[in-house]
Amino acid sequence: KLAETAVGVREVARNLGRARVRCDVPKTVMIVAKIQDARLVALTREITVWLIDHVRTADGTPLTVYVDEQIRSHPKFDYASLAGYPIEFWTPALCASDPDRIDLVITLGGDGTVLYTSWLFQHVVPPVIPFHLGSLGFLTVFDFTKYKALLRQVFTHGVRVNLRMRFSCTVFRARDKNGGLVAGSLARRRAKSLDMMAKQQGGAAAAAAAAAAAALAAEPSVAATAAAVKCATTVAAKSRAAADAAAAALALPPPPVPADDTAGVHDRYPTVESMTGGAPGSGMATPRTETMFTHHGVRITTETFQVLNELVVDRGPSAYMSQLELFGDERHLTTVQADGLVVSTPTGSTAYSLSAGGSIVHPEVSALLVTPICPHTLSFRPMLLPDSMELKVCVPPSSRNTAWASFDGRHRIELKQGDFVSITASKYPFPTICLHDQSSDWFNSLARCLRWNERQRQKAFT
Amino acid sequence: KLAETAVGVREVARNLGRARVRCDVPKTVMIVAKIQDARLVALTREITVWLIDHVRTADGTPLTVYVDEQIRSHPKFDYASLAGYPIEFWTPALCASDPDRIDLVITLGGDGTVLYTSWLFQHVVPPVIPFHLGSLGFLTVFDFTKYKALLRQVFTHGVRVNLRMRFSCTVFRARDKNGGLVAGSLARRRAKSLDMMAKQQGGAAAAAAAAAAAALAAEPSVAATAAAVKCATTVAAKSRAAADAAAAALALPPPPVPADDTAGVHDRYPTVESMTGGAPGSGMATPRTETMFTHHGVRITTETFQVLNELVVDRGPSAYMSQLELFGDERHLTTVQADGLVVSTPTGSTAYSLSAGGSIVHPEVSALLVTPICPHTLSFRPMLLPDSMELKVCVPPSSRNTAWASFDGRHRIELKQGDFVSITASKYPFPTICLHDQSSDWFNSLARCLRWNERQRQKAFT
Amino acid sequence: KLAETAVGVREVARNLGRARVRCDVPKTVMIVAKIQDARLVALTREITVWLIDHVRTADGTPLTVYVDEQIRSHPKFDYASLAGYPIEFWTPALCASDPDRIDLVITLGGDGTVLYTSWLFQHVVPPVIPFHLGSLGFLTVFDFTKYKALLRQVFTHGVRVNLRMRFSCTVFRARDKNGGLVAGSLARRRAKSLDMMAKQQGGAAAAAAAAAAAALAAEPSVAATAAAVKCATTVAAKSRAAADAAAAALALPPPPVPADDTAGVHDRYPTVESMTGGAPGSGMATPRTETMFTHHGVRITTETFQVLNELVVDRGPSAYMSQLELFGDERHLTTVQADGLVVSTPTGSTAYSLSAGGSIVHPEVSALLVTPICPHTLSFRPMLLPDSMELKVCVPPSSRNTAWASFDGRHRIELKQGDFVSITASKYPFPTICLHDQSSDWFNSLARCLRWNERQRQKAFT
Amino acid sequence: KLAETAVGVREVARNLGRARVRCDVPKTVMIVAKIQDARLVALTREITVWLIDHVRTADGTPLTVYVDEQIRSHPKFDYASLAGYPIEFWTPALCASDPDRIDLVITLGGDGTVLYTSWLFQHVVPPVIPFHLGSLGFLTVFDFTKYKALLRQVFTHGVRVNLRMRFSCTVFRARDKNGGLVAGSLARRRAKSLDMMAKQQGGAAAAAAAAAAAALAAEPSVAATAAAVKCATTVAAKSRAAADAAAAALALPPPPVPADDTAGVHDRYPTVESMTGGAPGSGMATPRTETMFTHHGVRITTETFQVLNELVVDRGPSAYMSQLELFGDERHLTTVQADGLVVSTPTGSTAYSLSAGGSIVHPEVSALLVTPICPHTLSFRPMLLPDSMELKVCVPPSSRNTAWASFDGRHRIELKQGDFVSITASKYPFPTICLHDQSSDWFNSLARCLRWNERQRQKAFT
Repeated sequence: KLAETAVGVREVARNLGRARVRCDVPKTVMIVAKIQDARLVALTREITVWLIDHVRTADGTPLTVYVDEQIRSHPKFDYASLAGYPIEFWTPALCASDPDRIDLVITLGGDGTVLYTSWLFQHVVPPVIPFHLGSLGFLTVFDFTKYKALLRQVFTHGVRVNLRMRFSCTVFRARDKNGGLVAGSLARRRAKSLDMMAKQQGGAAAAAAAAAAAALAAEPSVAATAAAVKCATTVAAKSRAAADAAAAALALPPPPVPADDTAGVHDRYPTVESMTGGAPGSGMATPRTETMFTHHGVRITTETFQVLNELVVDRGPSAYMSQLELFGDERHLTTVQADGLVVSTPTGSTAYSLSAGGSIVHPEVSALLVTPICPHTLSFRPMLLPDSMELKVCVPPSSRNTAWASFDGRHRIELKQGDFVSITASKYPFPTICLHDQSSDWFNSLARCLRWNERQRQKAFT
Repeated sequence: KLAETAVGVREVARNLGRARVRCDVPKTVMIVAKIQDARLVALTREITVWLIDHVRTADGTPLTVYVDEQIRSHPKFDYASLAGYPIEFWTPALCASDPDRIDLVITLGGDGTVLYTSWLFQHVVPPVIPFHLGSLGFLTVFDFTKYKALLRQVFTHGVRVNLRMRFSCTVFRARDKNGGLVAGSLARRRAKSLDMMAKQQGGAAAAAAAAAAAALAAEPSVAATAAAVKCATTVAAKSRAAADAAAAALALPPPPVPADDTAGVHDRYPTVESMTGGAPGSGMATPRTETMFTHHGVRITTETFQVLNELVVDRGPSAYMSQLELFGDERHLTTVQADGLVVSTPTGSTAYSLSAGGSIVHPEVSALLVTPICPHTLSFRPMLLPDSMELKVCVPPSSRNTAWASFDGRHRIELKQGDFVSITASKYPFPTICLHDQSSDWFNSLARCLRWNERQRQKAFT
Repeated sequence: KLAETAVGVREVARNLGRARVRCDVPKTVMIVAKIQDARLVALTREITVWLIDHVRTADGTPLTVYVDEQIRSHPKFDYASLAGYPIEFWTPALCASDPDRIDLVITLGGDGTVLYTSWLFQHVVPPVIPFHLGSLGFLTVFDFTKYKALLRQVFTHGVRVNLRMRFSCTVFRARDKNGGLVAGSLARRRAKSLDMMAKQQGGAAAAAAAAAAAALAAEPSVAATAAAVKCATTVAAKSRAAADAAAAALALPPPPVPADDTAGVHDRYPTVESMTGGAPGSGMATPRTETMFTHHGVRITTETFQVLNELVVDRGPSAYMSQLELFGDERHLTTVQADGLVVSTPTGSTAYSLSAGGSIVHPEVSALLVTPICPHTLSFRPMLLPDSMELKVCVPPSSRNTAWASFDGRHRIELKQGDFVSITASKYPFPTICLHDQSSDWFNSLARCLRWNERQRQKAFT
Repeated sequence: KLAETAVGVREVARNLGRARVRCDVPKTVMIVAKIQDARLVALTREITVWLIDHVRTADGTPLTVYVDEQIRSHPKFDYASLAGYPIEFWTPALCASDPDRIDLVITLGGDGTVLYTSWLFQHVVPPVIPFHLGSLGFLTVFDFTKYKALLRQVFTHGVRVNLRMRFSCTVFRARDKNGGLVAGSLARRRAKSLDMMAKQQGGAAAAAAAAAAAALAAEPSVAATAAAVKCATTVAAKSRAAADAAAAALALPPPPVPADDTAGVHDRYPTVESMTGGAPGSGMATPRTETMFTHHGVRITTETFQVLNELVVDRGPSAYMSQLELFGDERHLTTVQADGLVVSTPTGSTAYSLSAGGSIVHPEVSALLVTPICPHTLSFRPMLLPDSMELKVCVPPSSRNTAWASFDGRHRIELKQGDFVSITASKYPFPTICLHDQSSDWFNSLARCLRWNERQRQKAFT
């Protein structure tokens, strides 16, 4: 009985990853590329013109193409000469508020550009066709030099879509001792963070934002939101999957987190009072947890991020690592004594997690990877947990130092004593269109990107 | 749409692993223990008496307890003094032919005893309560010293059952050049193998079986089956999960593989003709595969084994490793240049696979682990594939040497040139009863067996 | 001929590590302990009294015992009651200027205290007897509870001394574009660094030093030196080998680097002009190096540190890792694409390097360990190089980010674009007194600290 | 004092590896190549003719060239047409008895051919110039297509010689219970081993030797020696460093071990009586060792092998691994619970040891690498020990199974209960001629063979 159901579920899961979807010709296509690279601006123009000239939707009209607002006045794009073309301009705000206006996304560049697209769409994501410009990435399997044939194929014969799991990462902050929100200190901290990042990036805009945030710090109740919005400016572009410089250049103002999402998250991840089943101090099941959570007993949700590759929590600029506490479905799993912790999706298993010693995981496997960075004990080996489990990475209130969380290597925030991040499988997966099918694309990427299964290796060593 | 289904499937999968099953008091209980250990014989007697004296089924009658046929005349069991007790005796043959006669299995010993139980039940497996006798194993989470309270709890409040995935491993043999079955050579090979194992084990019975098999080698058509049946006698008991000497002692006559199963497997794994879509030599999709399979173009299924931990293919006594070819769903994945390959279930992830560098995998993750043993290339890292994928590990016809396959470390066979093993998720999972629930039991085992998450480690290094 | 010499050298090297030295009873003994721990202050007093009361030098006089200047007024030390006892007080400055006044050092605490002692003695180091207070460390093999017997043994029968190799790490800074020293910016940077560390440590003294350094930044020519001296105040106490809180507490004013040493180092590590064989721009052997060094063509030595465990260069607070360039004896070895790099002594092989995946190295092996932290390529495996090789870790002038260097986890400095650190085997090894002999002590530490070779592990996994 | 000596020794060791030796033009050159490959026979002829035609020794006479005896009648060598050329023929016996007759060895092929050369010269080894034929190996750094220019360079300007450390591995056998030699059982075992290898290799010669050895088994006192001599025939050619098929083909009759060597070894590795300081049963220092060695208390030396890459002890055909006991300088280091153990030289660090997870070790580092194969405990990490240490790998008398030892992957013998292998740095290093210098050659090999430090890897993963 149970066994049969298990077999059935496995079968359904298998077929889900293999369905070929006949998609109508989209009405709107959005193009994402690193606009700092003039070559990419020219290619954006080329593909825009081709799409409008050669593709017709079901009712015979041309497509509408959305290009980056920042490209509008770029000389290589030469918008003036495209008068009459149904071109519109997207902004991060548009992606955040109206993702449904986009039927299909085309990315030009490396894996970093795909990660940036994931970052833009924090809720529902349109299907994405990731083109590379020479060097195949783990995510960018379409060869741009063949874009006409490939796109015709997509519009004519339908596609297989790879629903890549993302994580929903929610940051919970401790309230301060007086029971008030810690918005003021949050804003100050945020301002400092912006400032540091601004210096790293040399970006005047970011510095301005930092100054603004600092100014706001006087008004606690407002500052928290302001900081949350402004922080978009920081988008630290670091990413292994985006080691190409593309990433940095893509550091654009990110979308504000819509209110309703926060609400939903709030429902799903109750504050500590409800988690601990009562008044502050009433404690949780295990003594250990109790001492952890009774410092103030109160936490507030501040931000939620969808990540495609991984969440990294590390010691940041600090010379010492705080111990972190790792929970799974409210159970205390382990005290992390390491330089940091990578919590990765299968998609991210070939990125940072691999560097830290994790296994390579096929995207159809439903799992979270927990990979320690330089662990202090030899028994803390990389681990895979079911993606139905909710993880929490906590900085203990008694911790000597803070920790830093990095979301897909793009956004970096400080976790103070008592703060934690919750990680669950997101209800907003990231749909990428397959070149062949999920498995083929993935094995081909392995072979090309990691030189996995390469014949001449035999000469290598032995 | 698709995304929502995916979320739904994940949810079902999650709940499957957590259902609490109210099981009626069983009518029949089978006890498995290493009967060579006199202490265990005494404990078997003790628990048998307790079960019959203290437990009543729904209709008020005592349980029937099945104990090992080999224990019948053991002085410590003292069967004579148990006159009137509803005791019956199980044999491997009974487990193979009538698994439904057993409602519940109690194992006493280490993980090796549980693996042996998996070996006994090659089809449907009754729920298993694994008791340890002092040192907790990954599978043996029940403390024998508390057996009365624990069993009362089980019979009164129901249990959570952990459906552990097993692999169904089927061995395919090449026919010989004349198109005839290679039964004669198979039998000779088998006899040799039996002989070798007999020497290792010093077992007179095995030596006798070997002699018999050798004699049969003159009649090819009969010998293959005979060897398949007799080979049970060899059951090499080696297993990491059974490093306790218990394993060796449990080398009992194993169950014959029922005919209908072979038939089923035959349907599911067609001969190469149908796989390659035509006449011998017509080839498969890729040139590489073609050269692999056209040596004779014909294969026959010989044996199917259910494994709970892992299949290992290695070089055996040979000084050289053959290259192995690894296929996933008929796709050529890689040429394995290594000392061997471990294909492990999540249950087996803490056994041999861990030794070879694999990750630790929660039993709720639906995945196959592919872990190379001493790979010749640095890029061949441990990998996880979806358990809906069918793997094949092949010894190329052109290979200089043969390879050896080990099933749960219990049974070891030679793979000749052109032979291969197919691995799929079995439709016969292995149900173990949880002490708390699947996750708790597993994390506790990690902590106890690997010293994972141990506090004093901090002093260890740093 | 050559072969015989090689064998001879090996023999000499072997015996060097095994010589038993009959040391006269020392005239002066220095005691190092974490004085923030009142218990240790009491033990310091106890051992001081015992030494003076019970030990006599060759001429029959009592020993002179040096204790920490900061302990002088500590109530638990109760100096007033020790009137007449030949007690003197050491300061970091004394250790730096007059190491010869100390004949023997006794440390009480963990490995962190021993590392701190190494930090205090940047030149010649007196023999060190490292006592632990309960939990054996890799370096602290003497059990304090038996100090009387152990010290009597030492003074009576002589000792075996383990000459542990240290690294001499010299930081080279690029000059600025105008050819002037970059002292001003150095001082500013340093002030910032001090400030950051002060905040981390909450130390008022450090903050004051930071303020002072910042003030000095107006006078470039002076500031560089001042910063170099003051920086002692920062002694970031982080260390794996000192994960015990002791480390932090030991953050005392460190010794100024004596002038003659800087001179000597300057001779040994010529500026880039001489290294590149001529005028700026004349280049080095390989094109790659040339582009690296012609940015300004000029570098200055600023600081030299002796380290006992390891030098770590990592990305510090930056979200991105700069690529680092690694040179060995002027040859470009590799471009380091990783989170960082650990260059470790054999003594340090059981500390950070082990966390990052390095091998365990016996202290008699003459080697440098190069262990990448989360490398981006699978082929960058841990490596051992001869300790006769000079390594240089360089931040390329074109680098987007800076890097941070950590010396024994105690001192942390920023490496700007164009800066580099040179690492060579120091001519000032660190002599620790063996409990039994070097090998025995080391194997015992492995067994105790890493649980290496523990019998019950067998139950662990398998 | 001590410190200064240590620094001095380091300096000497360093320079030893860098000396440029002006070697006179050799009088005799030996060529080693895989003669089964007709192409190599032709190249052997070509280089032979060129050497004799173009090179003159100090006294103006041509060189004498030694080629493989087995090539004498090879049509491609066409010896008849070389009448008048000073050509002689070498055999393994010649290499064993008169190594001094060879001034220089030229190898054509892969690393396997170099390993075979090491195997041929079990005592003093002439300098070796290792040519590759297309694909660079770790040892074969000379490009054959440029042999004329390279050899002229060598004869004119002298060379740098890399003295590669070899191990001297001596097998000690237990006597039987009656105190007599166990020659009879040895010979039987040996015959079986030869037989197995003969089947693997399909070699008629080996089979004959096996038959002979079996016949001798009736005369115990003679058989031991006979087996030792004949076993040369088995030379299992497997080797990682010789994964190229060359290795197998080179399975030639190997040199008998000269009597004086055995004697010498006997002096150096005393029987257990002297090791344990007295009569059988008097025991060793530690209780553990005592129980190990008192089974019979007597052992005899049987064979000594020089290995260039590694000794591997593994479970061979057995499904179970025996526990092995590892001793260093008579100290019990650990009980090896693993599939096997690799004891490797720095030269071998890029071969099997790397596959098993060992570090890459520069050939100038004086160390033994101890790398476990699939260890059962997570704390058994790869380790480096000083090469002045004598290791012993023992099969405990109580062991359930035997183990197998492999020497450079060429020769494989069974270790029975109570047998052990002793490993020390050999007094006969293996001199290879450098292309540039030891370090350059090695780093170049790494880059070429392991793709270490390859630039395009950046695109690889991230």
